[in-house]
Amino acid sequence: MTDTHPTAGVPMRWVGPLRISGNVATTETQVPLATYESPLWPSVGRGAKVSMLTERGIVATLTDERMTRSVLVEAADAQTALAAARTLRTRTDELQQVVRGCSRFARLIGIRHEINANLLFLRFEFATGDAAGHNMVTLASDALLQHLLKTVPGISYGSVSGNYCTDKKATAINGILGRGKNVVTELLVPRDVVRRVLRTTAAGIAELNIRKNLLGTLLAGGVRSANAHYANMLLGFYVATGQDAANIVEGSQGVTTAEDRDGDLYFSCTLPNLIVGTVGHGKGLGFVETALARLGCRDAREPGENARRLAVLAAATVLCGELSLLAAQTNPGELMRAHVQLERDRTTSEAGA
Amino acid sequence: MTDTHPTAGVPMRWVGPLRISGNVATTETQVPLATYESPLWPSVGRGAKVSMLTERGIVATLTDERMTRSVLVEAADAQTALAAARTLRTRTDELQQVVRGCSRFARLIGIRHEINANLLFLRFEFATGDAAGHNMVTLASDALLQHLLKTVPGISYGSVSGNYCTDKKATAINGILGRGKNVVTELLVPRDVVRRVLRTTAAGIAELNIRKNLLGTLLAGGVRSANAHYANMLLGFYVATGQDAANIVEGSQGVTTAEDRDGDLYFSCTLPNLIVGTVGHGKGLGFVETALARLGCRDAREPGENARRLAVLAAATVLCGELSLLAAQTNPGELMRAHVQLERDRTTSEAGA
Amino acid sequence: MTDTHPTAGVPMRWVGPLRISGNVATTETQVPLATYESPLWPSVGRGAKVSMLTERGIVATLTDERMTRSVLVEAADAQTALAAARTLRTRTDELQQVVRGCSRFARLIGIRHEINANLLFLRFEFATGDAAGHNMVTLASDALLQHLLKTVPGISYGSVSGNYCTDKKATAINGILGRGKNVVTELLVPRDVVRRVLRTTAAGIAELNIRKNLLGTLLAGGVRSANAHYANMLLGFYVATGQDAANIVEGSQGVTTAEDRDGDLYFSCTLPNLIVGTVGHGKGLGFVETALARLGCRDAREPGENARRLAVLAAATVLCGELSLLAAQTNPGELMRAHVQLERDRTTSEAGA
Amino acid sequence: MTDTHPTAGVPMRWVGPLRISGNVATTETQVPLATYESPLWPSVGRGAKVSMLTERGIVATLTDERMTRSVLVEAADAQTALAAARTLRTRTDELQQVVRGCSRFARLIGIRHEINANLLFLRFEFATGDAAGHNMVTLASDALLQHLLKTVPGISYGSVSGNYCTDKKATAINGILGRGKNVVTELLVPRDVVRRVLRTTAAGIAELNIRKNLLGTLLAGGVRSANAHYANMLLGFYVATGQDAANIVEGSQGVTTAEDRDGDLYFSCTLPNLIVGTVGHGKGLGFVETALARLGCRDAREPGENARRLAVLAAATVLCGELSLLAAQTNPGELMRAHVQLERDRTTSEAGA
Repeated sequence: MTDTHPTAGVPMRWVGPLRISGNVATTETQVPLATYESPLWPSVGRGAKVSMLTERGIVATLTDERMTRSVLVEAADAQTALAAARTLRTRTDELQQVVRGCSRFARLIGIRHEINANLLFLRFEFATGDAAGHNMVTLASDALLQHLLKTVPGISYGSVSGNYCTDKKATAINGILGRGKNVVTELLVPRDVVRRVLRTTAAGIAELNIRKNLLGTLLAGGVRSANAHYANMLLGFYVATGQDAANIVEGSQGVTTAEDRDGDLYFSCTLPNLIVGTVGHGKGLGFVETALARLGCRDAREPGENARRLAVLAAATVLCGELSLLAAQTNPGELMRAHVQLERDRTTSEAGA
Repeated sequence: MTDTHPTAGVPMRWVGPLRISGNVATTETQVPLATYESPLWPSVGRGAKVSMLTERGIVATLTDERMTRSVLVEAADAQTALAAARTLRTRTDELQQVVRGCSRFARLIGIRHEINANLLFLRFEFATGDAAGHNMVTLASDALLQHLLKTVPGISYGSVSGNYCTDKKATAINGILGRGKNVVTELLVPRDVVRRVLRTTAAGIAELNIRKNLLGTLLAGGVRSANAHYANMLLGFYVATGQDAANIVEGSQGVTTAEDRDGDLYFSCTLPNLIVGTVGHGKGLGFVETALARLGCRDAREPGENARRLAVLAAATVLCGELSLLAAQTNPGELMRAHVQLERDRTTSEAGA
Repeated sequence: MTDTHPTAGVPMRWVGPLRISGNVATTETQVPLATYESPLWPSVGRGAKVSMLTERGIVATLTDERMTRSVLVEAADAQTALAAARTLRTRTDELQQVVRGCSRFARLIGIRHEINANLLFLRFEFATGDAAGHNMVTLASDALLQHLLKTVPGISYGSVSGNYCTDKKATAINGILGRGKNVVTELLVPRDVVRRVLRTTAAGIAELNIRKNLLGTLLAGGVRSANAHYANMLLGFYVATGQDAANIVEGSQGVTTAEDRDGDLYFSCTLPNLIVGTVGHGKGLGFVETALARLGCRDAREPGENARRLAVLAAATVLCGELSLLAAQTNPGELMRAHVQLERDRTTSEAGA
Repeated sequence: MTDTHPTAGVPMRWVGPLRISGNVATTETQVPLATYESPLWPSVGRGAKVSMLTERGIVATLTDERMTRSVLVEAADAQTALAAARTLRTRTDELQQVVRGCSRFARLIGIRHEINANLLFLRFEFATGDAAGHNMVTLASDALLQHLLKTVPGISYGSVSGNYCTDKKATAINGILGRGKNVVTELLVPRDVVRRVLRTTAAGIAELNIRKNLLGTLLAGGVRSANAHYANMLLGFYVATGQDAANIVEGSQGVTTAEDRDGDLYFSCTLPNLIVGTVGHGKGLGFVETALARLGCRDAREPGENARRLAVLAAATVLCGELSLLAAQTNPGELMRAHVQLERDRTTSEAGA
């Protein structure tokens, strides 16, 4: 970066620490959020504080991971498309070899297809190590496509991406078939912490979650999503850690669960489509290096381990902000009072600067 | 911002110029894109170049604007909810006055409702001047809600936001009822420009658009969306101009149209849910001020005019990137060759730096 | 009908009675269900029995009604489409007159539009008296379209139906903008009736409803719907009363609500898109005449009143079957035991016949 | 059926013949449609006539078949749910045996799962021979569920159906993962037949299909569907052949494709979720027996062959009606003229009767 190419300096804060455990990482750490919306910091901070007041903290379970790209092929007719789809089943080794020729890290782990009229959509699924994998899978899919066009009769090029992937769009397919990391976070908040820190009740949050997140989103015509504002936390976390933040579009599809368990609050966020990486575009910038190191995602580990750690930290950050906002919205007027107070602080502090 | 609060420095470039006309702005201007995904710059640049080779450039028509917030009210039963909804119709002046008490700029321009069981979702629609309006409409809705709770019998507080708004989620309601600016961009590309600059044909782009954007997204289970990558351009433009970039989630819902008109290409992007503002959070940062000024969005105009100008520039930027990518995907292998070349350039240039 | 045109004789039973009250009808009545799926009869019957054990029975509130048709118009460009849409606002009386020229019963009550690229979708909303109104609104929309093509500059014919209506498809628009009757049914079931007749608890049904209907449908990628099997009851009711049963596609979109209120069960079904009529195709058949008369929908009433009565009876029937099935599914194995028992009865009875 | 249980006599006609070929059946046959909407008969008849004027007729390709049921299981937490899901992979033989214990015809052919918070949705996929299979898979899933509850630690009963199946709801999952028969029908209509019989052009139909079916449905907020009126034909065919017609809800989700191929029309309907059977409820009624026999679906064939034949005939019938309606809608006023004429004929004929 030279002077002629200035950067957009997005305000960034580290909030927390939050406590996390589960099948990927057990740690306490602050998390970085880069955003123009400063109220996000104290909001996530409050959720992080809650996590520190519980024994296991946020339990994050990574349940699946894969990166996908769909190619589009035109066949002579549906019967030819079907024959093409069927031939792939018997050629796994051969296709695997094509992929190995493209990348050290990409590995083909599945193929799904759909036929519509004479068109064949092929959805390739890959493991991509510590990379989010956009380019890796595009390169591999391009090679697979060229290979198929040469070796399968009756088909021709449609597109290297058929929007059946699906990248940076909110769709149903990613959650159903898998794309990115699928992470479930769970937090059991003792009754007195709910009252004292969140100033509400488990029953209040559970009811609001059903009415606002599940029902409200349904009535608005949402797709596979029921949450208050995952997009805010993901944006802040993604910009701060050098991710392609356009992936918040599908990343923010997810479901919040809240249950009143005898006054304690069971709170969970399921994020089925988290796209993150610790290598690739943006990861070489100084502040990103610093952030990834501080999050423990620059350690020498098996390929994929650092990216998984980053994913569960992203998901835990989402839970913190989601919990805090829902708690606030159970109380009439609280949200606006908080905003107005923050504005006042900001104005005062800026005036004093 | 002091030293203790570093910023996330997102690489930013000005690309273009692009040419734009229509019912909001007629101008030629470069546009800023802040992103970690450097291939975006030449891609949008190519689309901008195409616009400069046409007489009218990108014709951007703003067809609607409104900002919304939904509140959730619990009623004794459905009949009471219905009575509450009906009473609002007769009390427009009174509600208008409540809103005026909250903000100089907010103006109530519509109310929609939906009843589910004994719950009443009220969706307030506002004009918000040059602000995107998130806080303004939350404040106003909060006041409206408190007013209604005091004056309408049989209802109680549900939530100040019922997810029926809908903010930062991909849903159907925003496009159907309106939220943010609704902008249609159109560009007629002469046949020889299609061939020479885009290296493809109008027929090729038209066919790809139907198969990938319309059909592929449909099969993936998308919602009111058919495009290749609006999210990428919006993210870059939003971060560069101080917008709340989490709004790319709904902002990137939109439909690309491409028609072969005797060899010329009619290309259009409709973005029904564009949320932008020229005042508010993030707009006071130095680089944002500079960017907005350079885009002509800091001029003394009627309230709302600067925001409208920003909206059509955002939409035109989206068209440029969308056109370029679709053109590339009509040609087998072109996309990967471009990426590989850019990677090589980047590596070389960074090595030399 | 002559011998040469046999009929498909769908088995039909009258079940109930059920008790109903609310803003349309207060009565007790049996309801007819024509279906090949005989287990539906006792299932709905159990729900009806529950309604009879409560004081007010099923409280049905009709909250809206309108029938719609969308026409598709091609404009020279988006600006021309916008001008066309705006001109309609000032011409309500004129358009009203066009509609009056088509039908004694159709009345234009609203127009919505959406612009995409250079296309203009116009969605006309009508009151249609006692008819479901498919043909009436098609006729009226056709006349409106021809009138507009003659009097609005720059537009040409696209289609008399633009799928933006939306007829016999599951979409979001019908629930959001309204199509058909919007009916909310509510039933408060005392704790002991829940236990004795439904053999379950309010808490059990409430939890199942959230997990299966709200969450399960969401994860499956549903659209504005959360119920167990509205389609079954609607099909049976529609075939028995001469309705166009293809309207179960959108009619079965709706939301079930279940709450544990201190052991009592609050149970509600919201059906926003119910299409029914008491005149028109199919209504002249003998068994349909009989059924409508028995339901009290052949009385001399204001136009529209008989259709409204039929709508709330349809909705109440839906509630009965929904309640019964959900209750059964709270108990492991109950559903299958019931089916197996019914099969055994059926086989025995058929063997004996 | 005795006198005490009257039937709903739905008017039924046999239309056609239509010509069909492909990977399931090659034949010419009339098809039965039971409906109150008499204009459907000549409409489907016109499409059938077109098929007879082509050499191969409607080419129907069955690309997949499976019947599904999802059960819902509650786990102690997400980690336990994940462990439960993983254990299933290693126990295929054991589960297969459980299924064999329930039914001679059901065979387990796949399991998919999704974890949300501490809930585990298991979607079992079965082959079901000639039955549509609703009861067969419910019985088998019930047995599988009970077996799992006994043998997998940390899980408890949620529901025998989790709406993740998905039965009689319009969702994305059925098309993506498969449910019922997936049938693609294709028809190449020579230019002069388009002009003479359909009174339109291939270009006209292709353009209308994009604007109305693909774009219009998208804007209306549809889910995985783009057609004019599949529901009408399916309803008529299902009632006439003893099917559970509530399955038109998901069955009518499908995509119409129309292309202008040098003046000839390539026309295709893809129906991914066709549920049909030739045995089971409703199939023992006299007129159903007759209909199935006349369609050639009562022949002695391998289990499943008769149901497949019925599926492609249903799909071909859908194509006939879809083609005819789209052709009519390319011509301003044609649809209404046809309806008005039919009404006149009907009235005259009824008056004369």
